Amino acid sequence: MPVFLDSSAADFDAAFRALLGAKREDAPDVDDVVAGIIADVRARGDAAVIELTAKFDRLDLTPETLAFSPEEIEAECARVPAEERQALEQAAERIRAYHEKQMPEDARWTDAAGASLGWRWTPVSAAGLYVPGGLASYPSSVLMNAIPAQVAGVERLVICAPTPGGKANPLVLLAAKLAGVETVYRIGGAQAIAAMAYGTETIAPVDKITGPGNAFVAAAKRRVFGRVGIDMIAGPSEILVIADKHNDPDWVALDLLSQAEHDESAQSILVTDDAGFGRAVAAAVEKRLETLERRKIAGASWRDFGAVIVARDLDEAAALSNRVAPEHLELCVEYPEALVEKVTHAGAIFLGQWTPEAIGDYVGGPNHVLPTARSARFSSGLSVMDFVKRTTIARMTPEALRAIGPAAETLAISESLQAHGLSVRARLDRLNEGEA
Amino acid sequence: MPVFLDSSAADFDAAFRALLGAKREDAPDVDDVVAGIIADVRARGDAAVIELTAKFDRLDLTPETLAFSPEEIEAECARVPAEERQALEQAAERIRAYHEKQMPEDARWTDAAGASLGWRWTPVSAAGLYVPGGLASYPSSVLMNAIPAQVAGVERLVICAPTPGGKANPLVLLAAKLAGVETVYRIGGAQAIAAMAYGTETIAPVDKITGPGNAFVAAAKRRVFGRVGIDMIAGPSEILVIADKHNDPDWVALDLLSQAEHDESAQSILVTDDAGFGRAVAAAVEKRLETLERRKIAGASWRDFGAVIVARDLDEAAALSNRVAPEHLELCVEYPEALVEKVTHAGAIFLGQWTPEAIGDYVGGPNHVLPTARSARFSSGLSVMDFVKRTTIARMTPEALRAIGPAAETLAISESLQAHGLSVRARLDRLNEGEA
Repeated sequence: MPVFLDSSAADFDAAFRALLGAKREDAPDVDDVVAGIIADVRARGDAAVIELTAKFDRLDLTPETLAFSPEEIEAECARVPAEERQALEQAAERIRAYHEKQMPEDARWTDAAGASLGWRWTPVSAAGLYVPGGLASYPSSVLMNAIPAQVAGVERLVICAPTPGGKANPLVLLAAKLAGVETVYRIGGAQAIAAMAYGTETIAPVDKITGPGNAFVAAAKRRVFGRVGIDMIAGPSEILVIADKHNDPDWVALDLLSQAEHDESAQSILVTDDAGFGRAVAAAVEKRLETLERRKIAGASWRDFGAVIVARDLDEAAALSNRVAPEHLELCVEYPEALVEKVTHAGAIFLGQWTPEAIGDYVGGPNHVLPTARSARFSSGLSVMDFVKRTTIARMTPEALRAIGPAAETLAISESLQAHGLSVRARLDRLNEGEA
Repeated sequence: MPVFLDSSAADFDAAFRALLGAKREDAPDVDDVVAGIIADVRARGDAAVIELTAKFDRLDLTPETLAFSPEEIEAECARVPAEERQALEQAAERIRAYHEKQMPEDARWTDAAGASLGWRWTPVSAAGLYVPGGLASYPSSVLMNAIPAQVAGVERLVICAPTPGGKANPLVLLAAKLAGVETVYRIGGAQAIAAMAYGTETIAPVDKITGPGNAFVAAAKRRVFGRVGIDMIAGPSEILVIADKHNDPDWVALDLLSQAEHDESAQSILVTDDAGFGRAVAAAVEKRLETLERRKIAGASWRDFGAVIVARDLDEAAALSNRVAPEHLELCVEYPEALVEKVTHAGAIFLGQWTPEAIGDYVGGPNHVLPTARSARFSSGLSVMDFVKRTTIARMTPEALRAIGPAAETLAISESLQAHGLSVRARLDRLNEGEA
């Protein structure tokens, strides 16, 4: 059974803190292994990648077969049934339309001192997306990672996707094609991250690596961070639903379960202002768990980390949600727009009872790669911004330099950086000569 | 002597690659030590921080003296001479004005399916800035880190600054005050990063940590990444100057040296279309090195990592610069605006001969915390964006759900996520019932 909490109970704060602090994932410390793999790939390139793939994925590759050939991709894509193809296309179109609105704009202005200031945005040249193998090989994640890069204008987009035993997921390859991915390598693990970060004879290095992965992939991303850009290190994910009694308990139960079924370490929390509704949702969850395909995973997640919290009112519900900083937040209330204003930390908000979180996973338009494990306190979901960078611009006129140069010189001297000061002084002296 | 390269030479590409690949910094592997320090601070809080500060900084603190008191800060600030105070105020004002233009805007729209989509930006609640001690304790860096946070609307801003022997830098404290910093702790190293990330009895945890530091600080930031947000891991920094012959060689020499004087691992590169001008600049550098206060550091940097490159023309110069992806780029050419368009990777651009890079370090307005060590390929300088995060918004109407829900259900089923599919199906069924 999940935790039942009442915000008016004397021990509520302690219990809520315990819920927030619950360690949901015991990531194994694979750092040393990963360091060795990265060093091996840097030293031996293709040979190391091929050996490690044979060892971990039981797949024998050559430099020529590291990537799927265009013919292989065509053949796999052709196997995708029409209904799934259309669904993927609709998703791609909607995700693209949303992300196109995120393209940031250049700026340039002249200030009172006569200095011309601004910035320009340019895309990353090459990006690599990691797509996990096996159960977590989600075509939707390919779209969510690749389309923002494509919209940003990234020239070269590659994927690394382990294919243990050589079996490809046709939908993943179709999603890659829809999102403009140039090459799909059938490699995974820390060796794939190392290959993308440092390059091998066959695999050209990229500048940015995104996408989820297991503990080895996460540790490798952390290690290559700095050499290349990375997205977040994904942790266990969560949903928080704020719902009043004017909801169908079964719908809310399914929304909670659609998070719980991902992973035993996922967390689903209901916050409601109506205790009776809370009990009804909990009962509906149990009923659905009887027949759900992934009931073992979803049941463990709900039992170990699930919670039903009764709050005094919706304002308090929002305040509690802010302390959780959930990856996904559903506002199943009569006036969700008013409640949105009170949300300070959340990865994505789904408003009203007609917006199940699953819509956002596939076809809503916003990205489904979102800050997990309370990191919405300081980070955002994946976006076009992850694939562009800003170059600042400054241009002084002689007059502008005269106005602000002396302050720069003063500060340079106070920081004992003489050449800094002299580089300004030499120019100011010339201006003064010109006047004399 | 620095490297002299001519782009028309047969071995140029190899030599240029060697320059790009030069390992400028041998960061010691302090990861195990840092892991121990972090674990200690997590386990013992204040007591660990106090012990470690006594050990590393030879400074005896108590929980009560971990932070400067308001009286101590006032007294230190009062010691700052008027000229330096005014320079710092002018810098703060200009940095604030620039960063205020970076505040991103919320968006909301309704698409053809009737779905209401958008996003909202909210500030990080609490941020911690690391300010190194000793020679690298720069008041300008305090402004550059704290003002973007302040502009973003961060509620609680703290600083950790080691003060070996107890000696404070009055200008650092004044800069903190000007930038709205609430508390300045006199602690440093990995223990300061751990305290800010996890909190102690006295130090409340923050959500984001920024600021430069030594190898211990960098390793600690890398380790707490995920628990809190961090800015980049700073590496050795660089300047690249593209200059034609219509420049004063001494000015360009001073600009190159103002990078070189930071650090022996800094890199200063001149790219020019005129070999004679290149030689004149190199001669001017040698002349300035005779008398420069930090000639030992600047001389080592210039000798070991400096380069003068003669390019065929300015277009080639820009292309070479893009391969370097320099932190700082000066365009000392007749038509710098035209050349800006050809720059694809750079942290900050300084246009024309009246814009020495040092202006950007202090009073230009743009941030001086910039992507180092070629990371401008994938990252940007510090900005307001580092202290805000985006929450995406989606709201379906029954009609919108009818239009896009089936695709979500199809994809959910194909990914074997049944509850996802059912959460959409349950709602679609209700809509169909309504019609029947």
